[in-house]
Amino acid sequence: MKLHLGGFHDCTAPSSDKIFIKATGGGAYKFADLFKEKLGVSLDKEDEMECLVTGANFLLKAVHQEAFTYLDGQKEFAQIDPNDLYPYLLVNIGSGVSMIKVDGDGKFERVSGTSLGGGTFWGLGRLLTKCKNFDELLELSHQGNNRVIDMLVGDIYGGTDYAKIGLSATTIASSFGKAISDNKGLVDYKPEDISRSLLRMISNNIGQISYLNALRFGLKRIFFAGFFIRGHAYTMDTISVAVNFWSKGEAEAMFLRHEGFLGALGAFMSYEKQCLDGLTVNKIPQRFPISVSSAGNKIYCSMNGKSNDNESIECTVYRT
Amino acid sequence: MKLHLGGFHDCTAPSSDKIFIKATGGGAYKFADLFKEKLGVSLDKEDEMECLVTGANFLLKAVHQEAFTYLDGQKEFAQIDPNDLYPYLLVNIGSGVSMIKVDGDGKFERVSGTSLGGGTFWGLGRLLTKCKNFDELLELSHQGNNRVIDMLVGDIYGGTDYAKIGLSATTIASSFGKAISDNKGLVDYKPEDISRSLLRMISNNIGQISYLNALRFGLKRIFFAGFFIRGHAYTMDTISVAVNFWSKGEAEAMFLRHEGFLGALGAFMSYEKQCLDGLTVNKIPQRFPISVSSAGNKIYCSMNGKSNDNESIECTVYRT
Repeated sequence: MKLHLGGFHDCTAPSSDKIFIKATGGGAYKFADLFKEKLGVSLDKEDEMECLVTGANFLLKAVHQEAFTYLDGQKEFAQIDPNDLYPYLLVNIGSGVSMIKVDGDGKFERVSGTSLGGGTFWGLGRLLTKCKNFDELLELSHQGNNRVIDMLVGDIYGGTDYAKIGLSATTIASSFGKAISDNKGLVDYKPEDISRSLLRMISNNIGQISYLNALRFGLKRIFFAGFFIRGHAYTMDTISVAVNFWSKGEAEAMFLRHEGFLGALGAFMSYEKQCLDGLTVNKIPQRFPISVSSAGNKIYCSMNGKSNDNESIECTVYRT
Repeated sequence: MKLHLGGFHDCTAPSSDKIFIKATGGGAYKFADLFKEKLGVSLDKEDEMECLVTGANFLLKAVHQEAFTYLDGQKEFAQIDPNDLYPYLLVNIGSGVSMIKVDGDGKFERVSGTSLGGGTFWGLGRLLTKCKNFDELLELSHQGNNRVIDMLVGDIYGGTDYAKIGLSATTIASSFGKAISDNKGLVDYKPEDISRSLLRMISNNIGQISYLNALRFGLKRIFFAGFFIRGHAYTMDTISVAVNFWSKGEAEAMFLRHEGFLGALGAFMSYEKQCLDGLTVNKIPQRFPISVSSAGNKIYCSMNGKSNDNESIECTVYRT
C-alpha cells in the first residue's frame, strides 16, 4: 500500500493546524515522537486488532476472489457469501501471531496467538544463516530439504512408519532434532536446509494452534493473513497441510490476496469515522474496480481488480 | 532406571534358548539388529504409547506424592484419588512431544503432539551455542535473560502494555524477534540468553498446545513428563505459566517425580503379560517402598520412596 501523504487536517477542528495521519500497530506508538519531530505529523493511533478486522471484513466483502485455498500447488478461489461470512478465525502473522475470532463488523475478540511467528523465522534465520534479509531467507527455503535437519518418525523407527497412531515415516517427529548429532556443527548444514526446516516448524505450528482455536470456538473458516505469508507458496502449503493434518481433513486454511495490508486498510478506513460520512463499506461497490474519492481533503482509494498474485491496493491520501 | 540384565528367557517356550529383553520407543526398532549382533539379545518391542500410559498409570496409582504442581518456585504435591484419576492428558516430552488422552488402564488415544520438543531445544541450541551437551545448555539457561533476544509486547508498543487485549509489556510477542536487528550477529548474543529464549519458546508452546487439547476433550488434569523436563525448575515454571496464562487460571500443569522413566517402566511391566501372573499393579502396595520380586527368572523392582528430587527407580532383571 502506498501512502503518498503529507498528512491530513483534523476536520473536527477546522481551524486547527494539527496535521495527522492514521496509523496502527506497535509502530504507531513506538514511532509517534519520530513522526512528530521529523515530519511535524501526529500519528492518530487506531487499535491494531480493530484495524485488522475492519480491513479483513472489507476485503472479504468487497473484493471479488479475495480468499483462496492453496494445497499441493493448487490455488482455488473460494466463493464466500458476504451474508454468510461470520464467524471466522483471522490469523494475522506478523512478528508474532494474533488469532482473532470475528463475529461481525466491529465484533471480535483476540482469542489466542503464538510468539512463534515471522520474527522467529527471520530472527533464528539470521542467527543460523548469512542471509541479509527476510526475502532472501524465504527464497532459499525453495531449494532446501528439511529432512537433513529434522528428525522424522522414520529416523526414530528405523525407516518405518508408526502406523498404529497414524504417523508416517516422513512425519516430522522433532524439528531440528537431527542437529543434536555430535558429528556436525552449524557450518555443516546448508542455509537452504535450515531455512526450510525453520519455515516448516513455524508454519506447521501456526497451522496447528489455529486449528485448535477454530475447533474450540466452532469456527468453520480460518483465514491466514499478514506480511509473513506474502503469497509464498511453500508457506501456504505448509500451513494448509498442517490444518488438514490436525483436522483430519475437516478444516481448510484460506488465504487473502491482500494479506499484508489489513491493518493499514483498517486504519485508512477509520478516517470515515471522523470525516468521511459519505464513505462506508456498504456503499463501496461489491465488485472491483473500487474507486473511492472524497471532496475537501482529498482521499483517493483505487483498487486494481485483476486476479493475479502481484495485485496491489493503492491508497492515496493528499493534503490540500 | 538401571537395567542390569543379561536378558530374559522366553518363558512361553521353556526349551528355547532365545534371550530377550523388553524395549520400547524408536530405539527398540532402530537398534534391534545391533543388540542381536553384539549381545545376542533380542529386543521384544512393546508399543511406545502403551508403555508410557502403563508407566504413568502405575506411578500415579502406586506412588505416594508422585504428582506435583510447580509455580513461582513452589512445589506442591497433589493428592490424587486413584479412583478419580481418569480421564487425563499425558504430555510426554522427548525429542518430539506426544499428547495422550488416557481414559483408563490400557485405554488411551494419542490425540496430538508437536515437533517442537526436546530435540528442537537441543538441536537449535547446539547450532546456536558452543554447548557440548543438553545438560550444559539447560544449566546455562539459569543465568540467561530472554528479553535480550525475544521481542516483547513492550518493545513493539514503545514500552507500554497492550492492555485492551490483556497483553502486558513483558509478554513475549515474538520469540527471537529482536534478533532481526541488523546490528548484531550470533557472536553478539550470550549463549545463556539464547538458551533461555529457546527454553521459553519451546516450553511455552508445549504448554499452550497441551492446554488447548485438554480443553478440547474436557480433561481436567494435564501431566507433563519425559526426559526433557528432568526436574528442571525453569522448564516446569514456564510450562506452568503457559498453562495458567492460556487457561486464564482455570487449568494447572502437573509433573511427575519419575518423569523420565514412564516408557521403560511400562516396558518392564509388560513382562507380566507373558510370565509374571503373580505381579500386577493392583497387588503392589499402594505406599512406598515398593519391592517387586518374582521366583524363577528373577525380577527385582525396588523403588526408593523418599520424596526428594534425586529419587530414582531401580529395576533389576536377572537372568538365572
